[in-house]
Amino acid sequence: MDLTLKEIEKARRNLNGIIAKTRCYRCNALNELTHGDIYLKLENLQKTGAFKIRGAYHKISSLSEEERKRGVIASSAGNHAQGVALASKIFGTQATIVMPVHAPISKIEATEKHGAKVVLKGEIYDEAYEEAVRLCEEKGYTFIHPFDDVKVMAGQGTIGLEILEEIPDADMIVVPIGGGGLISGIAVAAKSIRPDIKVIGVQAKNKPAMAESLKNRSRVSIMGTTTIADGISVKTPGELTYECILNYVDDIVTVEEEEIASAILLLAERSKIIAEGAGATPVAAMMGPLKNSLEGKKAVALISGGNIDINLFMRILERSLKMSVRLLTVTVILPDSPGSLVKLTTAIAESNCNIMSVQHKRIGGDYGIGYAEVEVEVEILSHEALQLLKEKLKENNFMFKLD
Amino acid sequence: MDLTLKEIEKARRNLNGIIAKTRCYRCNALNELTHGDIYLKLENLQKTGAFKIRGAYHKISSLSEEERKRGVIASSAGNHAQGVALASKIFGTQATIVMPVHAPISKIEATEKHGAKVVLKGEIYDEAYEEAVRLCEEKGYTFIHPFDDVKVMAGQGTIGLEILEEIPDADMIVVPIGGGGLISGIAVAAKSIRPDIKVIGVQAKNKPAMAESLKNRSRVSIMGTTTIADGISVKTPGELTYECILNYVDDIVTVEEEEIASAILLLAERSKIIAEGAGATPVAAMMGPLKNSLEGKKAVALISGGNIDINLFMRILERSLKMSVRLLTVTVILPDSPGSLVKLTTAIAESNCNIMSVQHKRIGGDYGIGYAEVEVEVEILSHEALQLLKEKLKENNFMFKLD
Repeated sequence: MDLTLKEIEKARRNLNGIIAKTRCYRCNALNELTHGDIYLKLENLQKTGAFKIRGAYHKISSLSEEERKRGVIASSAGNHAQGVALASKIFGTQATIVMPVHAPISKIEATEKHGAKVVLKGEIYDEAYEEAVRLCEEKGYTFIHPFDDVKVMAGQGTIGLEILEEIPDADMIVVPIGGGGLISGIAVAAKSIRPDIKVIGVQAKNKPAMAESLKNRSRVSIMGTTTIADGISVKTPGELTYECILNYVDDIVTVEEEEIASAILLLAERSKIIAEGAGATPVAAMMGPLKNSLEGKKAVALISGGNIDINLFMRILERSLKMSVRLLTVTVILPDSPGSLVKLTTAIAESNCNIMSVQHKRIGGDYGIGYAEVEVEVEILSHEALQLLKEKLKENNFMFKLD
Repeated sequence: MDLTLKEIEKARRNLNGIIAKTRCYRCNALNELTHGDIYLKLENLQKTGAFKIRGAYHKISSLSEEERKRGVIASSAGNHAQGVALASKIFGTQATIVMPVHAPISKIEATEKHGAKVVLKGEIYDEAYEEAVRLCEEKGYTFIHPFDDVKVMAGQGTIGLEILEEIPDADMIVVPIGGGGLISGIAVAAKSIRPDIKVIGVQAKNKPAMAESLKNRSRVSIMGTTTIADGISVKTPGELTYECILNYVDDIVTVEEEEIASAILLLAERSKIIAEGAGATPVAAMMGPLKNSLEGKKAVALISGGNIDINLFMRILERSLKMSVRLLTVTVILPDSPGSLVKLTTAIAESNCNIMSVQHKRIGGDYGIGYAEVEVEVEILSHEALQLLKEKLKENNFMFKLD
């Protein structure tokens, strides 16, 4: 069965009143960078913090009473797990979710909270998947695939209808790609209504299986390396999704880890939202490879989800601030005598920089007795402040290093 | 002139197509805590990151051609500055914004970006305000008051209409109070349509001027102390807003700094949004003083803005994680010999805790030669993990301290 606009419209009617009505918001920060008219479709504000409820719900709604009675199963430690769990709860269907044994407790709890049974099995995702397939056969559950299923793809495609309803003259929609279910649905929906619209996919450069498949004109599995965009870290593209993408998607671009981190920072600082790595990739693409093609264009970046561990989120913000020289570590070798730290902090204050933390180590090893190494973390508020700081440190004859 | 529903409806028509259409999103985290049906109205996603554009735009739209030609002025280092700047830009009116000399560069730049002229004057807000009044008389500008103005109040009141359009059967709306313009508009709008609805205000306990005024049945100025809810840090309530609140608002509750910080963390972690201190106060109130009154109720928390410095935001998250024992500093005195650090890190790993950073100081001063103090920052994933960590540390006979 091929994915059709009609099926996506059916999913839309099905989901009405079930999911949150997410909207598109104009993104001034991206407008300034690209000179385009850029919108963010905020699926991080969707129920369960990601778009996955759409496909899972439409799939389960298509099952027979008998099938729903037997229950459903999925393997996922991510957004699909919560999507299937919540959709099952709404139908009163028992869901079983298989996760690798090292799945974060927060993900297990979030899934169990929706009434799903969590089974921990295997060191990596593939082993959890195998266990799910085994349980499926043993118990007669229906397997809810995270992407390679027409009903699931149709559910995700409802996002395409919503975007075009709100911004009917959009020139481009930019969508993260893992297995490809999300972009397949959106591309079929959008191109069926507006054949001239561009649909662009984004993958992490560290996990580029679908991008490489499209380039080779045949499906390839790529192990790749880890990425902070864990939601789209998929080794093998789907069969159905690959065909869809080949026929409906205009291009796939890839983004670096640093670009994803910068996109997360931009979304936090300028758009006041929290995006997970995968959810930020369309913005990363607009800040990077797509930047020059957006001038004068109306484009929508799909923020697919916001489920990021808060500690990881903070580490990413901190690193991005450092990268953009907004947070700086000043390391200075000081004579270990009264007043020298005062001299240093005065120099920093006079350059209008803000001290975040100080670490004073009396034994530097390399510097000999009588010297101390001081590491000061400094917030830089402007380019001028950075210049002034360098001058002040030189003026005072400090031995210093900035990084 | 009294504030009327008619004026607010006029503001609504005026603002149509100018402002972003923000929505209400169900907040599961608050539902779990309160057993109510709680929604967040996300004005942090509004243009300029806060609701202020509404009042500023409606006010400027009410001026004569002649007045708009002469220009407008405001004093603010916060959201009102950007609201007035953007509204003026849309009308082609020159805006002058007076800020205290130590206003953050980010705020100055954000205001100038909208074409406003920024004048830096005075050490504190009151001095900036005086300069604005002086310039007003000297140059014939129109002063745009941040709250005590019927047109401004009417603009903010459009939020009340939008909330009732989306959730017509809401039992309660909870709104931050600084000068009182926002809640005045919302209360008049909501009570005019639904006299039985409850409108509750929230102030920071550190800056409770309006709450105290209401209690005393007369306006009082209260200096108070600083609060992370800087957007509602107002010493003297407005005259018009005080009258409105006296007549239309059911109650005002106050919240502690720690409660505001916890609300910011909950909104980030569970709702995937960034709220500034003032914007998080309604959620703080729902987690604290209002918690027990929400069971079975449909209530809306107004997230008024998201303009928080990203470094401050990170510090607040970190502190809140520590407060909820999710981030813990383990200080251990170790014999300074090979293998002792391995023993410690093994104990931590075995309790399923995640090491975030390690600081190893060989000279503890108090402990004598041959000992080192090690500080390990640890992420705690569950209550069980914390118990296990304590047991493991005891088992290994470590001298340790947790905080």
